Formats: sequence, structure tokens, C-alpha cells
Amino acid sequence: MTPPRQTYGPVISLLTDFGTTDPFVGVMHGVIYSRAPQAKIIDLTHAIPPQDIQRAGYVLLDSWRYFPPGTIHVAVVDPGVGTERRILAFLVDDQVVLAPDNGLVTALLDQYAPHEVRHLANPDLFLKSISQTFHGRDKFAPAAGLMAAGLAREDFGATTDTWITIDLPQVVTQDDGSVTGTIIYTDRFGNLITNMRGTELPLRPRVTVAGRVIEGLSKSFEEAGRSELLAIVGSTGRLEIAVNRGSAAKMLGASVGEPVVAQTSLAE
Amino acid sequence: MTPPRQTYGPVISLLTDFGTTDPFVGVMHGVIYSRAPQAKIIDLTHAIPPQDIQRAGYVLLDSWRYFPPGTIHVAVVDPGVGTERRILAFLVDDQVVLAPDNGLVTALLDQYAPHEVRHLANPDLFLKSISQTFHGRDKFAPAAGLMAAGLAREDFGATTDTWITIDLPQVVTQDDGSVTGTIIYTDRFGNLITNMRGTELPLRPRVTVAGRVIEGLSKSFEEAGRSELLAIVGSTGRLEIAVNRGSAAKMLGASVGEPVVAQTSLAE
Amino acid sequence: MTPPRQTYGPVISLLTDFGTTDPFVGVMHGVIYSRAPQAKIIDLTHAIPPQDIQRAGYVLLDSWRYFPPGTIHVAVVDPGVGTERRILAFLVDDQVVLAPDNGLVTALLDQYAPHEVRHLANPDLFLKSISQTFHGRDKFAPAAGLMAAGLAREDFGATTDTWITIDLPQVVTQDDGSVTGTIIYTDRFGNLITNMRGTELPLRPRVTVAGRVIEGLSKSFEEAGRSELLAIVGSTGRLEIAVNRGSAAKMLGASVGEPVVAQTSLAE
Repeated sequence: MTPPRQTYGPVISLLTDFGTTDPFVGVMHGVIYSRAPQAKIIDLTHAIPPQDIQRAGYVLLDSWRYFPPGTIHVAVVDPGVGTERRILAFLVDDQVVLAPDNGLVTALLDQYAPHEVRHLANPDLFLKSISQTFHGRDKFAPAAGLMAAGLAREDFGATTDTWITIDLPQVVTQDDGSVTGTIIYTDRFGNLITNMRGTELPLRPRVTVAGRVIEGLSKSFEEAGRSELLAIVGSTGRLEIAVNRGSAAKMLGASVGEPVVAQTSLAE
Repeated sequence: MTPPRQTYGPVISLLTDFGTTDPFVGVMHGVIYSRAPQAKIIDLTHAIPPQDIQRAGYVLLDSWRYFPPGTIHVAVVDPGVGTERRILAFLVDDQVVLAPDNGLVTALLDQYAPHEVRHLANPDLFLKSISQTFHGRDKFAPAAGLMAAGLAREDFGATTDTWITIDLPQVVTQDDGSVTGTIIYTDRFGNLITNMRGTELPLRPRVTVAGRVIEGLSKSFEEAGRSELLAIVGSTGRLEIAVNRGSAAKMLGASVGEPVVAQTSLAE
Repeated sequence: MTPPRQTYGPVISLLTDFGTTDPFVGVMHGVIYSRAPQAKIIDLTHAIPPQDIQRAGYVLLDSWRYFPPGTIHVAVVDPGVGTERRILAFLVDDQVVLAPDNGLVTALLDQYAPHEVRHLANPDLFLKSISQTFHGRDKFAPAAGLMAAGLAREDFGATTDTWITIDLPQVVTQDDGSVTGTIIYTDRFGNLITNMRGTELPLRPRVTVAGRVIEGLSKSFEEAGRSELLAIVGSTGRLEIAVNRGSAAKMLGASVGEPVVAQTSLAE
């Protein structure tokens, strides 16, 4: 962990549930460039299911360390828009995350303690006219733009020691060494991503999910036969269930919340 | 309204019905960067329903003022591609809109009179080889690129005093003070956006839509109970019908063209 | 064809089957900016059907010449990720294509012989930690970033004279002058794009597809009546089957692989 920076930018990542059918995201880009012509904006994804702060939190956790030092992550999944919920800046390692105070950042903070957390409340950070329904445009984008334009950390707002967290599914190791986890999301390819880190799996694991048993871990999708089910430590460093050139989500009819058990097959 | 500028850019916004499944939009970016390496391109949205120039016009109206001075908006919803329809540059406030002369810009021009309108006809503005079906790539993108590279306003083309407009649904205020409008689009969240500005609603309105009655305006989505129908002045400054953490479009089975009536409930 | 360049960039185009629902693409942007803050990244498309290297190859063929000199195209449709398949840099004209050695680039190379092909194998080009399933992030993006930051061509890797090609559907001209081709993809508008170049069609062609006959070529979509089927030389320079303000894919129930025959109607 490097210490917090004095200023952030010029890279800004956007993570929302706004979709790309409407102009919401494009307008946020417009607001950011209005305040920070030098900003470099990356759309992390805007396809978070509406109001799914847990999913947004995992996306942030799995992505943030691939961004340059100083990156400003703007995460707006915000069912409480227009209420008194706060907007917080979480300073983690050499990056900063702007998010509503609704627990979105829980998965990240569980693994990386923030240097400090600041409450963005100064109206000068925001647009002059604030709508009741689109703070991504009216508050988050202009604040991120100001940051990318050189706003000093002290001017983000007062520090705070409290923020909301949410309950996330936990990985449990049993006395017999077996590990139980959960499918936490599925990706475009129908891969089922678990919350079980590769480093916490038993040796030569036998993986049980949705009534199916998979023996051992594959080293690549192609190592399995075509259309064959496999278990692999994926790009997040966690266990994934996949089908070579197919969709595990479809084959198993499994989705978020499905339990997954990994036992060692060494003892046999 | 500021006067028109002598040159425009470096921000270019793109608004089309091209989708993002095909490489159409990426190729437009390539053409723009070929002519203006310093351009900053924003994808406003490419998910306008095919040929829906009315929807594109509302998106432009609701978005343009959040972009920096000098922005070049390129709006290509163009069923007449390959015919003799003109390409026009509408200079509005301190920005410019490039669009086919098919009425797309009507909603914007209804509220903001253009300083001047120019007809882009000089072949030097375009690629050397022009296809019959993709003027976004062959005419709009290269012209926008030249603009962002410093093309003087006089060189956009000759001014013109005529352009095509389309009929848009109107808001009507009755003698009894009630106001009648229309759902003009729905967004990703299933919110139903009307053409009725918050400033033209009666006091403490009772809103009727699709056989349902909503009493009063909410100040946030969360002010309503979960899955409850509500009316709110949304981020466009117009009346929206929404469901807290749900979809009004699904709940009401309502879509574009549905009438909406707002009466005052004060007299009771 | 201009000679190969000594260095490439700053424009990088991305062409993948990763979709935009997951953060895969955003993370690639993050990795690229980490190595090349001056890069300009264009998303060509990320909606290639999973593992469809043929479709990706056609997209590349139809798009690459609209990009600036020096562009680095990163094409990742890669069912063999994690196996020993190589990553190659194809230097074509004044641009370079990074792709897995799986035949993706076949359609492009059929028309444009590469100056040279280099094998990216030096681990210094890649991230330090390489996953088994996401080389777009771990190998392609960092290598492209280094290139955009000025990596000399000689340092891409050793040249190679062999690479994998795939069989593509061919256009056949019969003794009677009729030409037979194939639908190779459909676009968002439901247009059916063939592999038959406009320059190889017979004069005044009668086009037969899916049991329907179309007389002659249209010069624009609007030249046909509304909802009428038409044939046109599209923006790729190849024959397309379309419906004016409608979808040919829907009307004909036709899709990729469907044969198309063009005969001259002049002899009658």
C-alpha cells in the first residue's frame, strides 16, 4: 500500500447501473470534460443490474488494481439518490473511489483498509442545479472532474470514520478441510464466478455445484473436452465453474447465490 | 445564449442508431482521429431505435447543455442516407450540431433558436470515396474531424434559412388548469418520461396515466414505498412516472405516446 | 502499401468477444493507460459472438483502413487462451494487428500480405502475473500499451513465417457469368452482408436469396418502397440484402451461411 496522494487523476473510471441505451453516461462524460479537459475517462461497465450494489462492489474489487496510480473510480449504483445519503471518497492505496454511502465499497474495503474517507458535501463541488434523480451527472461527475483538474485531497470534504457496510456471502472452511462458498456472479460467457480464492482451496479439489461433481482444476478452458464442465482459478484469482466453448450458467441452470463445495480428493 | 464561435472542438459527441454490435461507431472514431488527433470523442448513445429521429432529438435536447463550449454534436439517425437530403450544421449557443436535414433537431430548435445554419456540401469535407449507406463514416465523421482540427465556421458551407421540422407531441393546458401531455420515451430503469416541464404543472398535481392516479410529486424515488408508483420531476426537468426500485413501464404496460394528465388537488 | 513503421500508436483499437456487461474491456483500458498514458483507445466492437473468430476477421477487414497510420489493432477472440497458442503481431501496410494465432486475421491477410509477422513471447511485454483465462488483460493490453509508448518493432519478438489460417466461404463465378456467394454476417439493422464484392457482380444483377428474387441494385435504401426488399452495394464495398426501414434478416429468416446468387438480367 502506498500512501494517499495529494491530488488524483487524470484517469477517471465510471462504474454504474445506467446502461448505455440512455444518454446518462455520455452526459457524465460531458460534465467531466467541462471541468477537466485533460481527463481520460474509462467506462468500466454500466451494465450493473439496476440497484445491485453487491455486484458493483465485486466489479470494483476485481478491477481497481489494473488502473494507473491516481485513478478516480466513480461508482454510482444509487437507489437512494435524492435522499440524505452521503457521497464519500474512499482513499485506498494510491487511488480514490467516489461512491454513495450505501455499502457498495464493502468488498473492496474488506480487503484493503482505506487511508481515509472523506464526505463530499461542499456545494462548490457539484453543479449549481441539482436534480432529484441523477446525481451521477449533478454531483459525482463534476466532483470527479474537479479532482482530475487538481483539487487537493483536503478539499474533498471532511474526514469521516463511519460508513455503511453490507453483508457479503462468506467462505467457510470446515473441520474436514472442505471449503464452502457461493456463486457471486456470472459473466458474459456463462462462467460462474465464486467467492473462493484459489489460495484457500484444498489440494486437488473435487468441486460440487448444482448437483454436479468436477474432479480437479483445469489449467485452461481447452484442457477440458469441448462442451465439458470444468473448474478453474480464473482471472480474479477465484474459483470459476466453466464449460469449454459453452456456458456453465446454461448447462447447470445455476446463478448467483448457488452454493459451491470444494473437498480434497487426495485422501482417497 | 453566447454568440457563435469561430471554431469548434475538441469535444465531439456522437448520437446514432448504429448500435455497438457492429463496428460502425468504432470506425467513425477512427476516421475522426485520422483528421483530428486531438479530438475527444464522447459516445452520447448509439442505442436510438433504428430510424427514430424523434427520440434522437429528445436525447439531444436533454443532453447538450452538459457539454463544454465548442462541442460538436454529431447526430446520425438517417433513414434517407444516400438520397439528396442535405447535411446541416446548426450553430446553437456555443455549440454546433451536425445532422441530416430530416427534422431530428426539431425539439432542440423549438427551445433554442440557432445563430445560423450551414449546409455541408463541399466534397473536401468528406472522404474521397462515399458509400451509399454509411455517411456517418464517409461524411459526418470526416467533417466533424475537420471542425475539431480548426475548420473556420465560414468553411462549413453556405448558410441556409430553411430546414425540415417534424411534428412533436404538444403539452396542452386546459381552461380548468389541468395539463395534458405525453410519454415521450422510457429509460433503462423503466421510468416513463413525459414532455411536461415541472414548471408548467399545476400545484400539488394529481397525475393520471394508464388508468392509475398518483397523488402529488415525490422528492426522491425512496420517498415512495418499495415497488410503489410515484411521480417526480426528473433529471430532464420534466415530469416522470416511476416505481421505487421497480419499473413503471412494466407495472403500467405503458410506453411512448401514452397520454398523461396532471390536475391540481388543491381545490378539494 | 506503405512500408512498416519503426514504432506504432498512439491509437489502439480493441476488437473482442468480451461484451460490455463485465468489466473486461474497462480493465484492458486501465492496463493500457498504465503503460501508455498518451494512448487513444477506440472500442471497435466487443460484441463478436463468443469465440467467433471468422466474424472478428471480417470486422477487422472492413474497418482497418479507416484508422490512422500507426494504429495498433488488438483483436482478442481467443478460445485457446491459456494453451500454448502464440500471440502474433501482423504488420500490414502502416498498421499492426495483435491477435492470437488462431486464424482470426485470415480475411485481412487474404487481401493484404503482411510486411512481416512477429511472435510476442518476451515476458517483459506482459503483466508479471498471468492468469489462465484473461490474456486480453494480462498479455495483449500490456503489450499494446508498450507499443503505444514507443516500443521498437524489432522488440515485438522474433519474426515468423508460419501462422494458422481458417477456411472462409469463397465467391464462385460460373461459366454463364453468374456469381455465387454467401451471407457472412448480419448487422444491427438486419441487413445481410455477403462476401461478394460489387466489382465482381454481373451487370444489372438479378439476386436470388432465400427463395426471393431481387431485380437490379438500388442506389439507396429509400429508392425501394417502404418495407421493400432491395440489393445494394453497401459500405463494405460488398453486396448487401436489405429492407427499406425494415429488417431483411427478419423478412427472409436468413442468416450467416445462406447462399446468394447474382445473375445478369441483361441477356433477356
